[in-house]
Amino acid sequence: MPGVYDDLDLSPNELELARLHQQASGGYVDLSSSNPTEHGLIFPPQVLQQAAEGFWASRRYAPDPHGSATARAAVAAYYAGRTPALHLELDDLFITASTSEAYALLFALLADPGDNLLAPGLCYPLFEYLAALRDLELRPYQLCEEDGWRIDEASLRDAVDQRTRAILLISPHNPTGSVIQQPVAVLRELGLPLICDEVFAAFTYAQPHVPPLAALHPELPVFTLNGISKFFALPDLKLGWIALNPPARHFLPRLELLNDTFLGANSLTQYLAPALFAQGMDFVNAMVARVRANVDLFIATIRQAPQITLRPPDGGYYLFPAVHGWEDEDALVLHLLAHGVLVHPGYFYGEAAGTHLLISALTEPTQFADGLTRLMQALTRS
Amino acid sequence: MPGVYDDLDLSPNELELARLHQQASGGYVDLSSSNPTEHGLIFPPQVLQQAAEGFWASRRYAPDPHGSATARAAVAAYYAGRTPALHLELDDLFITASTSEAYALLFALLADPGDNLLAPGLCYPLFEYLAALRDLELRPYQLCEEDGWRIDEASLRDAVDQRTRAILLISPHNPTGSVIQQPVAVLRELGLPLICDEVFAAFTYAQPHVPPLAALHPELPVFTLNGISKFFALPDLKLGWIALNPPARHFLPRLELLNDTFLGANSLTQYLAPALFAQGMDFVNAMVARVRANVDLFIATIRQAPQITLRPPDGGYYLFPAVHGWEDEDALVLHLLAHGVLVHPGYFYGEAAGTHLLISALTEPTQFADGLTRLMQALTRS
Repeated sequence: MPGVYDDLDLSPNELELARLHQQASGGYVDLSSSNPTEHGLIFPPQVLQQAAEGFWASRRYAPDPHGSATARAAVAAYYAGRTPALHLELDDLFITASTSEAYALLFALLADPGDNLLAPGLCYPLFEYLAALRDLELRPYQLCEEDGWRIDEASLRDAVDQRTRAILLISPHNPTGSVIQQPVAVLRELGLPLICDEVFAAFTYAQPHVPPLAALHPELPVFTLNGISKFFALPDLKLGWIALNPPARHFLPRLELLNDTFLGANSLTQYLAPALFAQGMDFVNAMVARVRANVDLFIATIRQAPQITLRPPDGGYYLFPAVHGWEDEDALVLHLLAHGVLVHPGYFYGEAAGTHLLISALTEPTQFADGLTRLMQALTRS
Repeated sequence: MPGVYDDLDLSPNELELARLHQQASGGYVDLSSSNPTEHGLIFPPQVLQQAAEGFWASRRYAPDPHGSATARAAVAAYYAGRTPALHLELDDLFITASTSEAYALLFALLADPGDNLLAPGLCYPLFEYLAALRDLELRPYQLCEEDGWRIDEASLRDAVDQRTRAILLISPHNPTGSVIQQPVAVLRELGLPLICDEVFAAFTYAQPHVPPLAALHPELPVFTLNGISKFFALPDLKLGWIALNPPARHFLPRLELLNDTFLGANSLTQYLAPALFAQGMDFVNAMVARVRANVDLFIATIRQAPQITLRPPDGGYYLFPAVHGWEDEDALVLHLLAHGVLVHPGYFYGEAAGTHLLISALTEPTQFADGLTRLMQALTRS
């Protein structure tokens, strides 16, 4: 078991010790958490309870390697409403227990041990764990902050070799919020399968919709991933999906066997899926409005502060500002914590030039405003 | 993607074509299905519905790499009731989305690509798919039918080499129903970690309880697997678990990271777990009584028929009789189908000397008796 799973130093690190100290002394405002239920973002329980009522008495076991047709129809209708050009057959969809499971299935589908995949050097630190399960190398490509965190095409081309089997793209990107708006020349040139993580697609900032990568690159095999974890703030009910575009159908029979090996999605959540889309959008829109208001407040607040700059996100629910005048992210985060605000250092998410902080715009608005005030006071005092 | 996932001949085979033909002509009695809900074995829906009521309003996301403490406490209490000697701490338990997921996690925990695992040559054909995901070789050991399907210790010893990382044991074994009753000398001698699949442990035939392998081999690292799929006939609600004995705790920190990578178990089913154990045992006992009655009927029926013999199972819900005077299992199954009874050929489950059939003793009793009558008529006419 090489690599990431061997790094077992689970003793509390300096930040965790400082957090406990601050908790016991002055307290702090937490701007680091993205657990929606900690911020009062609770999917309407009566919608779930009522939708589940029909399930119990009708419950029968009818396994399908694609997942239930009911759940797939709900997902297909969502895509049809978002991008009419992107027509999905029900067989183009696979329901999984989560996006993590979807990734693991696709890594096994597309690559053999010793192969490699490309992924942004800056991203949520999960992919290295998933890649290690298949003994795959994860090769980073770069994002250019000065160019709106767009993909550095040269770095992507340089990372490819004969054993590269797929390219991971995250749009809206976590944590920068960048959205891929246009076809990317180097992707077309390389011709490799694309795995596109759209789990933040519901959270747009500057525009109403995220353009699906499958529509920008209809000539390439594209596997689009999403699920109810971020979309409906239901990470615990475990439902993800994979959508294949026509060039990806080549892989469909093997993906059927792979998903059939686990049949990981539970029947109740699949049964609830139509109700989530039909009755959950007011809740989703309220979440999106909160995030937009928090992002707006952040941008307005830092406007006069040269110490901190932000490339406004296109989507997602994180803020990833650059802080100037600090070299050491740990020292900066400890300084902020001592001033009563908890954020995460940028390096938790990997490689980026400069000093960055990770802030959750999902935070309850009063708490967000309070934390932001403390953050600005701490930065101007430093 | 080598091996099993490349075998993509999904065209209907001869048996499937014959089944469709028979369905359209005289019809048949199905003795092959082990889908409990097809046989009227439906976990009491009112228990599930009532137990779920408290969930919706209290729903909060609180991820734990071991799974919810509530679910783990229910599982630990089950083991304490079954085998008081086998004391489990809550941290010795990991909740997973299924036994399949539990296997995949353990394969990644214990072995690297290119390593091998030992498994019975005769078993449910899932393990090769799970092993292929990790690029592991699955090496078969033999079971001796004449010795009650006991493990052939010499074949197990012969299969081990320097890259063997664990041994899979299935008790009650599927499909033979054999239960490991005593410590196995060769296991102690080899000292390798054991993965013990107990998913049929609730289904005992000759004895009230299956002795846990963790109690028979307290000196070895033992990972015990079970879940609600077979136990409570709830394969669709997705809950499995892994129980570690004290020598296996060495692997605990890495298993935490692995389970945390997926957090595959859904919160509702975890919430329901205590109710399953507290209110589901009458239902389980009724299932077990049905299986026992079907097995009894089968044994009594074949007593005077030299064409068919059965080593009575210790547990599980399958029958795996040997049929004499037939060399070709496909020809035998087609012959039986033409006489109006559908069973599976033994080779679906792998290697066994002789000609065997696979019959589900979960079948609804009237249907089981009818199918058995047809089976005996077809065999005596052959």
